[in-house]
Amino acid sequence: MVRIGIIGAAGLSGRELLYLLERHEEASVELLTSNKFQGKKVNEVFPELTGYSQVFQPNDIDATGCDLVFLAIPNQASLERVPNLLEQGVRVIDLSGAFRLRDKEVFSKFYKLSHSAPELLEEAVFGLPEYFKSEITTARLVANPGCYATGALLGLLPLGELLGKLDRPPIIDAKSGVSGAGGRVEDDVTNFVSVNENFKAYKVFSHQHQPEIQQYLQDLSPYSSDVMGEIILTPHLLPLSRGILSTIYLHFREPVTSSDIMERFSIFAESQEFVHFLEKGDLPDLRMTVYSNRCMIGAETDQSGQNCVIVSSIDNLVKGASGQAIQNMNLMFGLDEKQGLL
Amino acid sequence: MVRIGIIGAAGLSGRELLYLLERHEEASVELLTSNKFQGKKVNEVFPELTGYSQVFQPNDIDATGCDLVFLAIPNQASLERVPNLLEQGVRVIDLSGAFRLRDKEVFSKFYKLSHSAPELLEEAVFGLPEYFKSEITTARLVANPGCYATGALLGLLPLGELLGKLDRPPIIDAKSGVSGAGGRVEDDVTNFVSVNENFKAYKVFSHQHQPEIQQYLQDLSPYSSDVMGEIILTPHLLPLSRGILSTIYLHFREPVTSSDIMERFSIFAESQEFVHFLEKGDLPDLRMTVYSNRCMIGAETDQSGQNCVIVSSIDNLVKGASGQAIQNMNLMFGLDEKQGLL
Amino acid sequence: MVRIGIIGAAGLSGRELLYLLERHEEASVELLTSNKFQGKKVNEVFPELTGYSQVFQPNDIDATGCDLVFLAIPNQASLERVPNLLEQGVRVIDLSGAFRLRDKEVFSKFYKLSHSAPELLEEAVFGLPEYFKSEITTARLVANPGCYATGALLGLLPLGELLGKLDRPPIIDAKSGVSGAGGRVEDDVTNFVSVNENFKAYKVFSHQHQPEIQQYLQDLSPYSSDVMGEIILTPHLLPLSRGILSTIYLHFREPVTSSDIMERFSIFAESQEFVHFLEKGDLPDLRMTVYSNRCMIGAETDQSGQNCVIVSSIDNLVKGASGQAIQNMNLMFGLDEKQGLL
Amino acid sequence: MVRIGIIGAAGLSGRELLYLLERHEEASVELLTSNKFQGKKVNEVFPELTGYSQVFQPNDIDATGCDLVFLAIPNQASLERVPNLLEQGVRVIDLSGAFRLRDKEVFSKFYKLSHSAPELLEEAVFGLPEYFKSEITTARLVANPGCYATGALLGLLPLGELLGKLDRPPIIDAKSGVSGAGGRVEDDVTNFVSVNENFKAYKVFSHQHQPEIQQYLQDLSPYSSDVMGEIILTPHLLPLSRGILSTIYLHFREPVTSSDIMERFSIFAESQEFVHFLEKGDLPDLRMTVYSNRCMIGAETDQSGQNCVIVSSIDNLVKGASGQAIQNMNLMFGLDEKQGLL
Repeated sequence: MVRIGIIGAAGLSGRELLYLLERHEEASVELLTSNKFQGKKVNEVFPELTGYSQVFQPNDIDATGCDLVFLAIPNQASLERVPNLLEQGVRVIDLSGAFRLRDKEVFSKFYKLSHSAPELLEEAVFGLPEYFKSEITTARLVANPGCYATGALLGLLPLGELLGKLDRPPIIDAKSGVSGAGGRVEDDVTNFVSVNENFKAYKVFSHQHQPEIQQYLQDLSPYSSDVMGEIILTPHLLPLSRGILSTIYLHFREPVTSSDIMERFSIFAESQEFVHFLEKGDLPDLRMTVYSNRCMIGAETDQSGQNCVIVSSIDNLVKGASGQAIQNMNLMFGLDEKQGLL
Repeated sequence: MVRIGIIGAAGLSGRELLYLLERHEEASVELLTSNKFQGKKVNEVFPELTGYSQVFQPNDIDATGCDLVFLAIPNQASLERVPNLLEQGVRVIDLSGAFRLRDKEVFSKFYKLSHSAPELLEEAVFGLPEYFKSEITTARLVANPGCYATGALLGLLPLGELLGKLDRPPIIDAKSGVSGAGGRVEDDVTNFVSVNENFKAYKVFSHQHQPEIQQYLQDLSPYSSDVMGEIILTPHLLPLSRGILSTIYLHFREPVTSSDIMERFSIFAESQEFVHFLEKGDLPDLRMTVYSNRCMIGAETDQSGQNCVIVSSIDNLVKGASGQAIQNMNLMFGLDEKQGLL
Repeated sequence: MVRIGIIGAAGLSGRELLYLLERHEEASVELLTSNKFQGKKVNEVFPELTGYSQVFQPNDIDATGCDLVFLAIPNQASLERVPNLLEQGVRVIDLSGAFRLRDKEVFSKFYKLSHSAPELLEEAVFGLPEYFKSEITTARLVANPGCYATGALLGLLPLGELLGKLDRPPIIDAKSGVSGAGGRVEDDVTNFVSVNENFKAYKVFSHQHQPEIQQYLQDLSPYSSDVMGEIILTPHLLPLSRGILSTIYLHFREPVTSSDIMERFSIFAESQEFVHFLEKGDLPDLRMTVYSNRCMIGAETDQSGQNCVIVSSIDNLVKGASGQAIQNMNLMFGLDEKQGLL
Repeated sequence: MVRIGIIGAAGLSGRELLYLLERHEEASVELLTSNKFQGKKVNEVFPELTGYSQVFQPNDIDATGCDLVFLAIPNQASLERVPNLLEQGVRVIDLSGAFRLRDKEVFSKFYKLSHSAPELLEEAVFGLPEYFKSEITTARLVANPGCYATGALLGLLPLGELLGKLDRPPIIDAKSGVSGAGGRVEDDVTNFVSVNENFKAYKVFSHQHQPEIQQYLQDLSPYSSDVMGEIILTPHLLPLSRGILSTIYLHFREPVTSSDIMERFSIFAESQEFVHFLEKGDLPDLRMTVYSNRCMIGAETDQSGQNCVIVSSIDNLVKGASGQAIQNMNLMFGLDEKQGLL
């Protein structure tokens, strides 16, 4: 049994981890913390988590007895905690954005924070198991991907060589449920009356997942931002609880057949546990992935063959956060990648 | 033109007042305040209020230039402000619960506040125009009814003498949209992820509108709580923005014909601008009253004639708060009761 | 492995069965039917059901190879199919209302159908495992309870002897999500624009689950409708997909202490896998049970000790339909009651 | 008083017309039809339309007594009815898509219908008052714009000459509430359980409003599809009742300053009653326009000055359908453009 600690277990991602780990047969939650609820029993604060009779500990509690700690706390708090945990020999999966970007200047620009542990940026492994499986297996520190980044990268990367034929940057028009909008409870932004029957764009040209997508798109494909420009990401806030649907616009400099595209996705999906491709030109909706660790993808091309729309769907709290974190844990400890995720 | 001041104009009730007064032809908003947004222009903070280019003032600003002030601030703040405004000769419509209950002990018990202006409790007029029209006309201080109280009282009082035939207290199972739940923005209670796809009861046996309904039911009908017991009110929180539907259970000690009930409601509704009764045993839904100052009512009896279910529907922000406040203003200043409310 | 057939597998209950059975380790779906989609592959019509590559068969297909057939078809269709299946030696769990009521006259009155197989009414076992466990074990025909009946009975029956102290019939004010409202897709009633931001009561004094609750309340408790009157059930339609919250009003002829009530529920819940009681006077919301086979219950009494409000929460598609059906299957075939339901 | 007929008054657009015309001081509804509800009184079928005690007539009733007829019926039905009405000297505002496209081949391709009245295509005036005011004044037949076309064209056309600097076609990622999705009640597509907590793209590269936007963008601006390609429109279905938010992606071949863009929109908005521009780089949400005839627009440019995102917000049933139709009526009959629309 992997001995797990969860720092920040009362937030949305933390509770999703608890919910999923209740069904995991080879991991046990030894430690869970929440500053807000410290001293209270989990299943009294959250009665739906019937299996947890433990008491919330404070966030700064010693975690040396754990094999693995999940950090589900804000960026600044992760920055401070990670070096200490690694020194103590505890492996870490960080759900914040603190260790995803390689360039600390870009980090500062998008996160409005200076990076206090840049020496770990090279070591941190990006926890997208579809592309970094072997690195994750041996990692001390996994930077769990952002929710928008997961949806966008899984909708783009399987195209492989075809991404070298783009003549314009991909436009990612992404729509997220409220649990993915990062709003803290106190924010007016996520108040029911503000969100219900409403819809809006936010952080246009400035969302922190844009450089994350940019970085891994360049690392893992022939796409070059120097030649084709920076990808464009526009997040929107949907009046629903869970899910991210990304509508991705591609333009190729020469016609690409629909079957070229289909085939690449299909081959990729076949080798992956959690990626599904809708073959016949169908497009996924959010319903198909909610409460699952799946990413579902569909594609459509126009008559010219130069325009292509790709739609990817994930549950932002599962494949976009806690489910993917558990998938990473499974890989780190030699377990079945699907354990606890079906 | 009635010169209006609104203290607390940026909250949900305050904004609803602004929205409605924009269409009012005989009142002009001279003063509007918000501590949170003071110094900012209304239509910059709330772009949908296109007609207001004024600047929010602080809540404690002098209001002597106004003919009427609406108070859309918390109970404690109303308690403190009202005596001062009346002394200055300004008439007041208070949307809080500070002056609705006659008994200051009951007030303390339900509001967890001691009453600092009990000398005004006798003078304050309960702003339910269907029952206190003439008193409102000359009132200095109108206590605008609570949203649950409005829905319940308009579903009960038209029965008149029939209420003397009850042998059990009415049970009011009430369901409110989030804007009526009194939650401040900071509350977890009204966060989207908490409310969406959820439903729950709250303040069972302890909601502050229970004594308000109790008091006016006894004042205005033969119902006696000494004999029949205290009415029961159970508020619930609906995952929608606006509206209160109250399902009211009555039991008569002898059979009452369906037409007895229908007739009383129909006669009452005919004499009222904003009360509609669905004759043929139809029951109203929330859709029928949302964004209007209407109260819609329907009734159904069982075969025995002893059980009756009444359903009333209002928009909690309009007939349950700001619309009713404007209706009261119209009466206080000799205007057409419907002005600005169609 | 139990060999399963599902007649009517494309409706909401049928799909929920498929979803749950995908995770069941001792049952395999051998046959699934849908007249609407016959000839199509399940996972092409419903891509989220990734594990089913079978083809939908017509509803009238022979099912003799199955150990158990779930019927998730309308009442009339169940009436016609059940006798035939039993003759062929196939055990049946019927999710319709066709075999729940013992009295065929009452059935006719509430279902507007004449009962074509009254000889089976005595044999059919009511599939509420908390009360009929041993009968279910050996049953040929299980009548799976109605969703409102499940929520109401589990909120009432644990009170046991205390129900003999009621002096008025229980009032059950029940609120259901749209998937439980029985609306067929073609109905205007369940159209998004009709339901969204709306709320209403329906079938007041006439819902077909009223006699079902009545019958089992009398069978299983000292409650007597002759003395105290018929229970009152008012269903309402919530603007959300899943869940039933029942607010139940009780009045005792003498004071009952809060701890009397708590204790009975707690003792009952301890002996049951899927019933949880919130001890400290907390009340459940829908969130706590959605997507689970749990029923969560809370209770609150007033100062007099004579009034009590009980709130029960279930997911209408799981404990209120397909989850309970699988719980029944587990008992019928000697499996762990929880198999496939965690 | 303009004497109005509404053919198809019971659908969503028809009811919105009724709702708006109830407040119109210079038009009276003389005739209203619905095949489904013929013979029933309007306010019995739709109790919220309290002001209408007329009876629904059949759709094919003679309308010669009317000055103006609104057609709120399907495309094929409009095609058949319009020539006849014009012959009888009745002016027509057609809310369907039957007379919006000039080219009958394009019409056939996108609407899957052959055009039976091509002789009227030249005469029909596109009812976008911001661009065709004088033509509308004298028109016999106004083709009321599609909802997506209204949102997109008002977000694009004010840029004027700047549209000649685009080097790629605009991409319009549009999101509509369910009332705009054109789904008939019978469609599974608009069933609550299908739409709620869901989101999806539909009719990618094939929506019938694409050629409508294309045609008027070319007519009214220097944009040339021959040079830059066809605009791309991707409609999505939002889980809410009303509103269309369009996120429009532009790429200029040379940098354009943010103030260039702001200025053009601001100047345009100043001369229009129903178009508002959010100056300081703010972007509109749906809340700002719901239940109003407003279009609200915002724009954001990136650092390079070559990428621009424009967001426009309308209520699809008001500015996107019935409100715009009344605006057109006001112009056709020399009334104040704003009459009945505030």
